[in-house]
Amino acid sequence: MLTLYYAPATCALASHLALEYAGAAYETVRIDFSKKQQQSPEYLQLNPKGRVPALMTDRGILTETPALLQYISQAFPKAGLAPLDDPFLMARVNEFNTYLCATVHVAHAHRVRGYRWADDEQAIEAMKKKVPQTMGDCFALIERHMLADPWVLGERFSICDPYLFTLSGWLKGDGVDIQRFPKVAEHSRRMAADPVVLKVLAAH
Amino acid sequence: MLTLYYAPATCALASHLALEYAGAAYETVRIDFSKKQQQSPEYLQLNPKGRVPALMTDRGILTETPALLQYISQAFPKAGLAPLDDPFLMARVNEFNTYLCATVHVAHAHRVRGYRWADDEQAIEAMKKKVPQTMGDCFALIERHMLADPWVLGERFSICDPYLFTLSGWLKGDGVDIQRFPKVAEHSRRMAADPVVLKVLAAH
Repeated sequence: MLTLYYAPATCALASHLALEYAGAAYETVRIDFSKKQQQSPEYLQLNPKGRVPALMTDRGILTETPALLQYISQAFPKAGLAPLDDPFLMARVNEFNTYLCATVHVAHAHRVRGYRWADDEQAIEAMKKKVPQTMGDCFALIERHMLADPWVLGERFSICDPYLFTLSGWLKGDGVDIQRFPKVAEHSRRMAADPVVLKVLAAH
Repeated sequence: MLTLYYAPATCALASHLALEYAGAAYETVRIDFSKKQQQSPEYLQLNPKGRVPALMTDRGILTETPALLQYISQAFPKAGLAPLDDPFLMARVNEFNTYLCATVHVAHAHRVRGYRWADDEQAIEAMKKKVPQTMGDCFALIERHMLADPWVLGERFSICDPYLFTLSGWLKGDGVDIQRFPKVAEHSRRMAADPVVLKVLAAH
């Protein structure tokens, strides 16, 4: 049995969706950020990073969304969530997910968690100010170069799609109009109508 | 034939080392950052992100270090650079590489590329100031929780090792004494003495 530690409105949504799409048997544990539960001694014992998502497996805890997504696709190969045996296409998957994690998520985090990278209040404000531009630039690149139709990889639905859906859901809060990116907007609409997504979002 | 686009003193070193460890047939193309070649129309045509590394394959260009490292390990399986068929251990590899890419590299980038996240000069200075602390915190976590002995995964050398070596090489410039982290320091020493590393570093 897998256990996903998650919090609403975080990138843990991507792994939660992937578990559903994989048909995995799993439980969820909600971490309450308003009570700083992610920094509690009990949670830090499990995951010293003090963040979500984290996935407890029978061999230990795993963290980092791209790692969780690939793990889910490999542990449940029948669901066909990644082109596991094609090194080039698998690299496309990892290239996409790494970009979301290390560039897009990081750009977004400068609006809400600037304290990670500066102590000065004015600096944190200056970071916030630039987020609409950086997030807009990221999604312009995704729209132009990285998103095939109808799914990220083209005809094949994969672990990239719930991750993109998760991060494109942050655009509004980041002051970016998703309609600037017609393919991203259509992808988001299509995902949002999926019964799997509706079910998982209800829990978030 | 593979072609690696790289620049010295960047994370492209990790992929360059992995290609050598894999025994791959490859060429390298050096991108001159001092001439802003990474932003030239020719290079942007190849890699719209305008960064290195990028790896040209017979099926197209690939970017993002964690994706390149896994690609190299999958394309040259006999080199045994990753536990490809073990979903849990593969997740450990991806968890480690994702942390280096999305947290450690990002922390470092706030010293030299703060303009990515703020326009204000004082904010960029404030970011620089915090880098010794953030990089120190990252490597404290690596030392305590993520680095087995003698290699990242324990007995097994993997694509995690050249990546860790690459980023631990940035500590000095970031104002962090590597000796605070005995396991990281020993890992770095061991890697630096490897003939493969000496050969590749000579080209960088």
